[in-house]
Amino acid sequence: MDNFPLDHVAVAVPSLESAAAVFGRLIGATPTPIEELPAQGVRVCFLGSLELLEPMGPDTTVGRFLQKRGPGLHHVAWRVPELEKALERFRNQGFELIDPVPRQGARGHRVAFLHPRSTGGVLVELVEGR
Amino acid sequence: MDNFPLDHVAVAVPSLESAAAVFGRLIGATPTPIEELPAQGVRVCFLGSLELLEPMGPDTTVGRFLQKRGPGLHHVAWRVPELEKALERFRNQGFELIDPVPRQGARGHRVAFLHPRSTGGVLVELVEGR
Repeated sequence: MDNFPLDHVAVAVPSLESAAAVFGRLIGATPTPIEELPAQGVRVCFLGSLELLEPMGPDTTVGRFLQKRGPGLHHVAWRVPELEKALERFRNQGFELIDPVPRQGARGHRVAFLHPRSTGGVLVELVEGR
Repeated sequence: MDNFPLDHVAVAVPSLESAAAVFGRLIGATPTPIEELPAQGVRVCFLGSLELLEPMGPDTTVGRFLQKRGPGLHHVAWRVPELEKALERFRNQGFELIDPVPRQGARGHRVAFLHPRSTGGVLVELVEGR
């Protein structure tokens, strides 16, 4: 059986700049340059294994998350070597795919999300890479 | 400045056994033996960098979390080489310490938690280790 390593943990924040300052002081990492992902309605940056997500507006997935729950942990991502193969296996195992086909994610990676209903309440991202 | 690596991500679940089966299928890791931490009111096990937390009763921190928010992401832990030194630095930087002195955590490590009020809504654990 495959053993997928953790890729990153993502936190929803109202402002990348102020959150990057807080987490930079905390873990000592320098934030990557900010990347915009208009298809997902977010601006993102990374500090080591931590991804910060700022919504591009209130009517986006992360915008609604912030309104409902406030800033905090949003999803966890694991790295898989072959995304289509992983998605097929997960579908056969009864996991619920939000993205039946890969989409473009941050840092040039292909990604897909699994629905928290099938993953113990955790929004799971799969990031293709080695 | 120190650069602290991610140690683990913790998920609150109603049952370790069934959650370990789900996440075992997902990430392909074998769960560690279950450990009881009565002082913190939890039973825990690890699958790679994922910690699963099951409350030992409804009137525990994780029990109340589950009743309020349901199963899902609970906290993130970073590894620090010298815990007292890190706690002193964080206090001086304005972070709010839940544990002013280290306590005993899972897997024999000394740990301390920071309040989410001061860390962008994220409950942060510091785990002493290299």
